[in-house]
Amino acid sequence: MSLVRVQFFSISLDGFGTGDVQSRDAPFGHAGERLHEWMFATRSWRERVGEPGGTGGIDDAFARLHDVGIGAEIMGANKFGPPGWHRDPEWKGWWGPNPPFHTPVFVLTHHPRPPIELEGGTTFHFVEASPAEALETAREAADGRDVRIGGGATVIRDFLAARLVDHLHVVVVPILLGRGVRLWDGLEGLERDYEVEAVSSPSGVTHLTFTRRTV
Amino acid sequence: MSLVRVQFFSISLDGFGTGDVQSRDAPFGHAGERLHEWMFATRSWRERVGEPGGTGGIDDAFARLHDVGIGAEIMGANKFGPPGWHRDPEWKGWWGPNPPFHTPVFVLTHHPRPPIELEGGTTFHFVEASPAEALETAREAADGRDVRIGGGATVIRDFLAARLVDHLHVVVVPILLGRGVRLWDGLEGLERDYEVEAVSSPSGVTHLTFTRRTV
Repeated sequence: MSLVRVQFFSISLDGFGTGDVQSRDAPFGHAGERLHEWMFATRSWRERVGEPGGTGGIDDAFARLHDVGIGAEIMGANKFGPPGWHRDPEWKGWWGPNPPFHTPVFVLTHHPRPPIELEGGTTFHFVEASPAEALETAREAADGRDVRIGGGATVIRDFLAARLVDHLHVVVVPILLGRGVRLWDGLEGLERDYEVEAVSSPSGVTHLTFTRRTV
Repeated sequence: MSLVRVQFFSISLDGFGTGDVQSRDAPFGHAGERLHEWMFATRSWRERVGEPGGTGGIDDAFARLHDVGIGAEIMGANKFGPPGWHRDPEWKGWWGPNPPFHTPVFVLTHHPRPPIELEGGTTFHFVEASPAEALETAREAADGRDVRIGGGATVIRDFLAARLVDHLHVVVVPILLGRGVRLWDGLEGLERDYEVEAVSSPSGVTHLTFTRRTV
Protein backbone atom coordinates (compact mmCIF):
# COMPACT_ATOMS: atom_id res chain seq x y z
CA MET A 1 0.00 0.00 0.00
CA SER A 2 1.24 3.46 -0.90
CA LEU A 3 1.81 5.56 2.22
CA VAL A 4 2.01 9.30 2.75
CA ARG A 5 5.22 10.07 4.64
CA VAL A 6 7.03 13.00 6.14
CA GLN A 7 10.76 12.24 6.55
CA PHE A 8 13.01 14.15 8.94
CA PHE A 9 11.29 17.47 9.02
CA SER A 10 13.40 19.47 11.47
CA ILE A 11 11.93 21.92 13.97
CA SER A 12 13.26 23.93 16.88
CA LEU A 13 12.27 23.19 20.48
CA ASP A 14 9.74 25.96 20.22
CA GLY A 15 8.24 24.34 17.14
CA PHE A 16 9.48 26.43 14.22
CA GLY A 17 10.25 24.64 10.93
CA THR A 18 11.90 27.72 9.52
CA GLY A 19 12.99 31.06 10.87
CA ASP A 20 12.20 34.40 9.37
CA VAL A 21 12.67 36.27 7.13
CA GLN A 22 13.13 33.77 4.28
CA SER A 23 15.05 35.09 1.28
CA ARG A 24 17.26 33.97 -1.58
CA ASP A 25 20.30 34.28 0.69
CA ALA A 26 18.59 32.72 3.69
CA PRO A 27 16.20 29.89 2.73
CA PHE A 28 15.54 29.19 6.42
CA GLY A 29 15.62 32.81 7.56
CA HIS A 30 17.51 33.52 10.77
CA ALA A 31 17.58 29.77 11.52
CA GLY A 32 20.40 29.46 8.99
CA GLU A 33 21.67 25.88 8.89
CA ARG A 34 21.09 25.23 12.58
CA LEU A 35 18.04 23.03 12.03
CA HIS A 36 20.01 20.68 9.78
CA GLU A 37 23.47 20.42 11.33
CA TRP A 38 22.55 16.99 12.72
CA MET A 39 22.01 15.84 9.12
CA PHE A 40 25.19 17.36 7.69
CA ALA A 41 27.12 15.32 10.28
CA THR A 42 25.82 11.96 9.03
CA ARG A 43 27.61 9.51 6.71
CA SER A 44 24.51 9.56 4.55
CA TRP A 45 24.87 13.27 3.86
CA ARG A 46 28.66 13.09 3.46
CA GLU A 47 28.28 10.38 0.83
CA ARG A 48 25.74 12.48 -1.00
CA VAL A 49 28.11 15.46 -1.23
CA GLY A 50 31.16 13.26 -1.84
CA GLU A 51 32.90 13.70 1.50
CA PRO A 52 34.36 11.01 3.77
CA GLY A 53 33.39 10.29 7.36
CA GLY A 54 30.25 11.19 9.25
CA THR A 55 28.18 9.57 11.97
CA GLY A 56 26.65 6.14 11.47
CA GLY A 57 24.11 5.97 14.28
CA ILE A 58 20.49 6.85 14.69
CA ASP A 59 20.68 10.21 12.85
CA ASP A 60 22.24 8.47 9.87
CA ALA A 61 19.66 5.67 9.94
CA PHE A 62 16.81 8.16 9.79
CA ALA A 63 18.57 10.27 7.17
CA ARG A 64 18.90 7.25 4.89
CA LEU A 65 15.16 6.63 4.98
CA HIS A 66 14.47 9.94 3.24
CA ASP A 67 14.33 8.38 -0.21
CA VAL A 68 13.59 4.71 0.48
CA GLY A 69 10.40 3.64 -1.26
CA ILE A 70 9.44 7.17 -2.30
CA GLY A 71 7.84 7.62 -5.73
CA ALA A 72 6.87 11.30 -5.61
CA GLU A 73 7.13 14.40 -3.42
CA ILE A 74 4.69 17.20 -2.71
CA MET A 75 6.20 20.48 -1.54
CA GLY A 76 4.98 23.98 -0.82
CA ALA A 77 5.83 27.04 -2.84
CA ASN A 78 8.00 28.29 0.03
CA LYS A 79 10.20 25.21 -0.16
CA PHE A 80 10.68 25.54 -3.92
CA GLY A 81 12.02 29.07 -3.82
CA PRO A 82 12.32 32.39 -2.03
CA PRO A 83 9.34 34.77 -1.85
CA GLY A 84 8.54 35.95 -5.36
CA TRP A 85 10.23 33.09 -7.26
CA HIS A 86 7.14 32.80 -9.43
CA ARG A 87 8.03 36.15 -11.01
CA ASP A 88 11.39 34.73 -12.15
CA PRO A 89 10.85 32.52 -15.23
CA GLU A 90 14.39 31.12 -14.83
CA TRP A 91 13.96 29.88 -11.25
CA LYS A 92 14.33 26.09 -11.11
CA GLY A 93 14.58 25.49 -7.37
CA TRP A 94 17.50 25.67 -4.95
CA TRP A 95 19.08 22.39 -5.93
CA GLY A 96 20.95 22.95 -9.21
CA PRO A 97 20.82 20.83 -12.37
CA ASN A 98 20.54 17.47 -10.52
CA PRO A 99 18.17 17.88 -7.57
CA PRO A 100 18.18 15.25 -4.81
CA PHE A 101 14.60 14.07 -5.44
CA HIS A 102 14.92 11.74 -8.46
CA THR A 103 11.11 11.49 -8.75
CA PRO A 104 8.24 13.70 -9.86
CA VAL A 105 7.85 16.64 -7.45
CA PHE A 106 4.55 18.49 -7.18
CA VAL A 107 4.93 22.13 -6.12
CA LEU A 108 1.77 23.64 -4.64
CA THR A 109 1.46 27.18 -5.95
CA HIS A 110 -1.07 29.80 -6.93
CA HIS A 111 1.10 30.49 -9.98
CA PRO A 112 1.25 27.29 -12.05
CA ARG A 113 3.78 27.07 -14.91
CA PRO A 114 4.88 24.29 -17.27
CA PRO A 115 6.81 21.36 -15.77
CA ILE A 116 10.61 21.53 -15.45
CA GLU A 117 12.50 18.34 -16.18
CA LEU A 118 15.98 18.18 -14.69
CA GLU A 119 18.74 15.57 -14.48
CA GLY A 120 18.51 12.45 -12.37
CA GLY A 121 14.80 11.85 -12.76
CA THR A 122 13.47 14.96 -11.01
CA THR A 123 10.58 16.73 -12.72
CA PHE A 124 8.91 19.67 -11.03
CA HIS A 125 5.17 19.97 -11.68
CA PHE A 126 3.31 23.08 -10.55
CA VAL A 127 -0.19 22.56 -9.29
CA GLU A 128 -2.89 24.70 -7.72
CA ALA A 129 -4.80 22.12 -5.70
CA SER A 130 -6.06 21.12 -2.28
CA PRO A 131 -3.95 18.65 -0.29
CA ALA A 132 -6.30 15.78 -1.20
CA GLU A 133 -6.28 16.64 -4.90
CA ALA A 134 -2.51 17.06 -4.99
CA LEU A 135 -2.12 13.74 -3.24
CA GLU A 136 -4.28 11.96 -5.77
CA THR A 137 -2.10 13.31 -8.58
CA ALA A 138 1.14 12.50 -6.76
CA ARG A 139 -0.03 8.98 -5.93
CA GLU A 140 -0.69 8.29 -9.55
CA ALA A 141 2.80 9.49 -10.44
CA ALA A 142 4.34 7.47 -7.59
CA ASP A 143 3.08 4.29 -9.22
CA GLY A 144 2.56 2.25 -6.06
CA ARG A 145 5.41 3.73 -4.09
CA ASP A 146 5.05 6.20 -1.21
CA VAL A 147 4.46 9.94 -1.44
CA ARG A 148 6.67 12.20 0.64
CA ILE A 149 5.31 15.49 1.95
CA GLY A 150 8.47 17.56 1.79
CA GLY A 151 7.42 20.70 3.67
CA GLY A 152 7.60 23.49 4.62
CA ALA A 153 5.82 23.60 7.93
CA THR A 154 2.61 25.07 6.54
CA VAL A 155 2.19 22.34 3.96
CA ILE A 156 2.87 19.53 6.44
CA ARG A 157 0.42 21.10 8.87
CA ASP A 158 -2.23 21.29 6.12
CA PHE A 159 -1.77 17.60 5.24
CA LEU A 160 -1.90 16.62 8.91
CA ALA A 161 -5.04 18.68 9.46
CA ALA A 162 -6.62 16.92 6.47
CA ARG A 163 -5.64 13.58 8.09
CA LEU A 164 -3.70 12.52 5.02
CA VAL A 165 -0.38 11.58 6.65
CA ASP A 166 0.41 7.94 7.50
CA HIS A 167 3.91 8.36 8.88
CA LEU A 168 5.40 11.55 10.31
CA HIS A 169 9.06 11.81 11.30
CA VAL A 170 10.01 15.06 12.99
CA VAL A 171 13.45 15.95 14.32
CA VAL A 172 13.44 18.28 17.31
CA VAL A 173 16.62 20.35 17.46
CA PRO A 174 17.51 21.83 20.88
CA ILE A 175 17.50 25.48 19.87
CA LEU A 176 14.93 28.22 20.42
CA LEU A 177 14.23 30.21 17.27
CA GLY A 178 11.59 32.46 18.83
CA ARG A 179 10.01 33.30 15.47
CA GLY A 180 9.26 31.77 12.10
CA VAL A 181 6.71 29.27 10.84
CA ARG A 182 5.28 26.83 13.39
CA LEU A 183 4.60 23.19 12.59
CA TRP A 184 2.14 22.24 15.32
CA ASP A 185 -0.44 25.03 15.33
CA GLY A 186 -4.06 23.95 15.16
CA LEU A 187 -3.38 20.22 15.53
CA GLU A 188 -4.87 19.59 18.98
CA GLY A 189 -5.25 15.88 19.69
CA LEU A 190 -3.27 14.75 16.63
CA GLU A 191 -1.55 12.05 18.75
CA ARG A 192 -4.81 10.14 19.18
CA ASP A 193 -4.58 8.81 15.62
CA TYR A 194 -0.96 7.69 15.91
CA GLU A 195 1.51 5.55 17.76
CA VAL A 196 4.08 8.10 18.89
CA GLU A 197 7.68 7.26 19.70
CA ALA A 198 10.47 9.58 20.81
CA VAL A 199 14.14 8.70 20.75
CA SER A 200 16.96 11.08 21.49
CA SER A 201 20.29 10.93 19.71
CA PRO A 202 23.79 11.57 21.09
CA SER A 203 23.86 14.54 18.68
CA GLY A 204 21.28 16.25 20.89
CA VAL A 205 18.29 16.01 18.58
CA THR A 206 15.19 13.94 19.33
CA HIS A 207 13.52 11.89 16.64
CA LEU A 208 9.73 11.76 16.90
CA THR A 209 7.75 9.31 14.84
CA PHE A 210 3.99 9.32 14.44
CA THR A 211 2.74 6.10 12.86
CA ARG A 212 -0.94 6.01 12.03
CA ARG A 213 -2.92 3.40 13.94
CA THR A 214 -4.56 0.83 11.75
CA VAL A 215 -8.13 0.99 12.99
CA MET B 1 26.56 27.64 45.83
CA SER B 2 22.79 28.02 45.84
CA LEU B 3 21.31 27.32 42.41
CA VAL B 4 18.02 28.31 40.81
CA ARG B 5 16.37 25.18 39.45
CA VAL B 6 13.31 24.14 37.52
CA GLN B 7 12.49 20.47 38.10
CA PHE B 8 10.35 18.42 35.74
CA PHE B 9 8.15 21.10 34.32
CA SER B 10 5.97 19.20 31.85
CA ILE B 11 4.92 20.62 28.49
CA SER B 12 3.17 19.26 25.42
CA LEU B 13 4.96 18.78 22.10
CA ASP B 14 3.52 22.08 21.00
CA GLY B 15 4.98 23.76 24.06
CA PHE B 16 2.02 24.29 26.40
CA GLY B 17 2.63 23.99 30.15
CA THR B 18 -1.07 24.03 30.86
CA GLY B 19 -4.23 23.84 28.80
CA ASP B 20 -7.12 26.19 29.03
CA VAL B 21 -9.44 27.11 30.64
CA GLN B 22 -8.00 26.67 34.15
CA SER B 23 -10.57 26.34 36.91
CA ARG B 24 -11.08 24.86 40.37
CA ASP B 25 -12.19 21.60 38.75
CA ALA B 26 -9.49 21.65 36.10
CA PRO B 27 -6.18 23.06 37.38
CA PHE B 28 -4.53 22.28 34.03
CA GLY B 29 -7.55 23.14 31.88
CA HIS B 30 -8.33 20.74 29.06
CA ALA B 31 -4.89 19.13 29.51
CA GLY B 32 -6.31 17.29 32.52
CA GLU B 33 -3.70 14.94 33.95
CA ARG B 34 -2.15 14.09 30.60
CA LEU B 35 0.97 16.19 31.18
CA HIS B 36 1.77 14.30 34.37
CA GLU B 37 0.86 10.67 33.70
CA TRP B 38 4.56 9.84 33.26
CA MET B 39 5.08 11.01 36.85
CA PHE B 40 2.10 9.17 38.35
CA ALA B 41 3.59 5.95 36.95
CA THR B 42 6.87 6.29 38.88
CA ARG B 43 7.81 4.55 42.14
CA SER B 44 8.64 7.95 43.54
CA TRP B 45 5.08 9.15 43.11
CA ARG B 46 3.56 5.87 44.29
CA GLU B 47 5.59 6.03 47.49
CA ARG B 48 4.43 9.58 48.05
CA VAL B 49 0.77 8.60 47.83
CA GLY B 50 1.27 5.30 49.68
CA GLU B 51 0.83 2.91 46.76
CA PRO B 52 3.05 -0.03 45.77
CA GLY B 53 4.80 -0.51 42.41
CA GLY B 54 5.71 2.02 39.80
CA THR B 55 8.57 2.46 37.34
CA GLY B 56 12.13 2.75 38.55
CA GLY B 57 13.93 4.07 35.48
CA ILE B 58 14.75 7.47 34.10
CA ASP B 59 11.36 9.04 34.83
CA ASP B 60 11.63 7.97 38.44
CA ALA B 61 15.20 9.23 38.71
CA PHE B 62 14.18 12.68 37.52
CA ALA B 63 11.05 12.67 39.67
CA ARG B 64 13.13 11.98 42.79
CA LEU B 65 15.26 15.06 42.16
CA HIS B 66 12.29 17.36 42.63
CA ASP B 67 13.04 17.98 46.29
CA VAL B 68 16.72 17.11 46.62
CA GLY B 69 18.68 20.09 47.94
CA ILE B 70 15.77 22.51 47.63
CA GLY B 71 15.35 25.11 50.38
CA ALA B 72 12.53 27.25 48.95
CA GLU B 73 10.12 27.47 46.01
CA ILE B 74 8.83 30.40 44.02
CA MET B 75 5.52 29.87 42.23
CA GLY B 76 3.09 31.97 40.25
CA ALA B 77 -0.40 32.90 41.36
CA ASN B 78 -1.86 30.56 38.74
CA LYS B 79 -0.09 27.58 40.28
CA PHE B 80 -1.33 28.41 43.78
CA GLY B 81 -5.00 28.44 42.89
CA PRO B 82 -7.70 28.81 40.25
CA PRO B 83 -8.50 32.22 38.79
CA GLY B 84 -9.93 34.42 41.56
CA TRP B 85 -8.48 32.49 44.52
CA HIS B 86 -7.35 35.79 46.02
CA ARG B 87 -11.01 36.65 46.66
CA ASP B 88 -11.40 33.52 48.82
CA PRO B 89 -9.85 34.15 52.26
CA GLU B 90 -10.02 30.41 53.02
CA TRP B 91 -8.02 29.27 49.96
CA LYS B 92 -4.80 27.58 51.06
CA GLY B 93 -3.63 26.01 47.79
CA TRP B 94 -4.52 22.74 46.05
CA TRP B 95 -2.49 20.48 48.28
CA GLY B 96 -4.44 20.01 51.53
CA PRO B 97 -3.14 20.34 55.09
CA ASN B 98 0.32 18.83 54.35
CA PRO B 99 1.56 20.18 51.01
CA PRO B 100 4.43 18.42 49.25
CA PHE B 101 6.85 21.35 49.47
CA HIS B 102 8.18 21.17 53.07
CA THR B 103 9.95 24.52 52.66
CA PRO B 104 8.98 28.18 52.47
CA VAL B 105 7.05 28.84 49.23
CA PHE B 106 6.85 32.34 47.76
CA VAL B 107 3.69 32.97 45.75
CA LEU B 108 3.97 35.84 43.28
CA THR B 109 0.71 37.79 43.39
CA HIS B 110 -0.74 41.24 43.00
CA HIS B 111 -2.87 40.47 46.05
CA PRO B 112 -0.52 39.82 48.98
CA ARG B 113 -1.94 38.37 52.21
CA PRO B 114 -0.42 37.13 55.48
CA PRO B 115 1.65 33.94 55.35
CA ILE B 116 -0.06 30.56 55.74
CA GLU B 117 1.82 27.96 57.78
CA LEU B 118 0.78 24.37 57.14
CA GLU B 119 1.97 20.94 58.26
CA GLY B 120 5.25 19.40 57.19
CA GLY B 121 7.27 22.58 57.00
CA THR B 122 5.43 24.35 54.18
CA THR B 123 4.74 28.05 54.68
CA PHE B 124 3.19 30.06 51.86
CA HIS B 125 4.38 33.67 51.64
CA PHE B 126 2.65 36.08 49.27
CA VAL B 127 4.84 38.62 47.56
CA GLU B 128 4.40 41.26 44.92
CA ALA B 129 7.87 41.42 43.43
CA SER B 130 9.99 41.16 40.29
CA PRO B 131 11.68 37.81 39.61
CA ALA B 132 15.03 39.16 40.86
CA GLU B 133 13.51 40.56 44.05
CA ALA B 134 11.53 37.41 44.76
CA LEU B 135 14.66 35.34 44.21
CA GLU B 136 16.63 37.40 46.70
CA THR B 137 13.95 36.80 49.33
CA ALA B 138 13.67 33.09 48.52
CA ARG B 139 17.46 32.62 48.58
CA GLU B 140 17.62 34.05 52.04
CA ALA B 141 14.89 31.67 53.19
CA ALA B 142 16.61 28.71 51.47
CA ASP B 143 19.63 29.19 53.71
CA GLY B 144 22.27 27.98 51.28
CA ARG B 145 20.14 25.39 49.55
CA ASP B 146 18.69 25.73 46.05
CA VAL B 147 15.59 27.65 45.01
CA ARG B 148 13.07 25.86 42.81
CA ILE B 149 11.01 27.84 40.32
CA GLY B 150 7.83 25.82 40.45
CA GLY B 151 5.85 27.27 37.55
CA GLY B 152 3.52 27.81 35.84
CA ALA B 153 4.83 28.44 32.36
CA THR B 154 4.59 32.21 32.59
CA VAL B 155 6.69 32.40 35.75
CA ILE B 156 9.36 30.05 34.42
CA ARG B 157 9.50 32.04 31.20
CA ASP B 158 9.90 35.28 33.18
CA PHE B 159 12.79 33.84 35.21
CA LEU B 160 14.45 32.48 32.06
CA ALA B 161 14.07 35.82 30.30
CA ALA B 162 15.70 37.51 33.31
CA ARG B 163 18.56 34.98 33.01
CA LEU B 164 18.06 33.82 36.58
CA VAL B 165 17.81 30.05 36.01
CA ASP B 166 20.86 27.80 36.48
CA HIS B 167 19.27 24.44 35.78
CA LEU B 168 16.12 23.82 33.76
CA HIS B 169 14.55 20.38 33.48
CA VAL B 170 11.60 20.17 31.10
CA VAL B 171 9.63 17.04 30.28
CA VAL B 172 8.17 16.98 26.78
CA VAL B 173 5.02 14.84 26.64
CA PRO B 174 4.02 13.55 23.19
CA ILE B 175 0.60 15.16 23.01
CA LEU B 176 -0.63 18.24 21.15
CA LEU B 177 -2.73 20.51 23.34
CA GLY B 178 -3.30 23.15 20.70
CA ARG B 179 -4.03 25.89 23.25
CA GLY B 180 -3.03 27.02 26.70
CA VAL B 181 0.01 28.78 28.13
CA ARG B 182 3.28 28.40 26.21
CA LEU B 183 6.62 27.97 27.92
CA TRP B 184 9.05 28.97 25.18
CA ASP B 185 7.67 32.24 23.82
CA GLY B 186 10.13 35.10 23.58
CA LEU B 187 13.21 33.06 24.50
CA GLU B 188 15.08 33.11 21.18
CA GLY B 189 18.66 31.91 21.58
CA LEU B 190 18.22 30.69 25.16
CA GLU B 191 20.28 27.58 24.37
CA ARG B 192 23.44 29.65 23.91
CA ASP B 193 23.82 30.06 27.67
CA TYR B 194 23.33 26.38 28.46
CA GLU B 195 24.55 22.87 27.88
CA VAL B 196 21.44 21.16 26.57
CA GLU B 197 20.81 17.43 26.79
CA ALA B 198 17.81 15.45 25.59
CA VAL B 199 17.02 11.92 26.64
CA SER B 200 13.88 10.03 25.79
CA SER B 201 12.25 7.57 28.15
CA PRO B 202 10.48 4.29 27.36
CA SER B 203 7.35 6.00 28.72
CA GLY B 204 7.37 8.22 25.63
CA VAL B 205 8.38 11.49 27.26
CA THR B 206 11.67 13.26 26.57
CA HIS B 207 13.65 14.84 29.38
CA LEU B 208 15.41 18.06 28.42
CA THR B 209 18.01 19.57 30.70
CA PHE B 210 19.51 23.02 30.31
CA THR B 211 22.57 23.45 32.53
CA ARG B 212 24.04 26.94 32.60
CA ARG B 213 27.56 27.19 31.23
CA THR B 214 30.09 28.39 33.75
CA VAL B 215 31.67 31.28 31.88
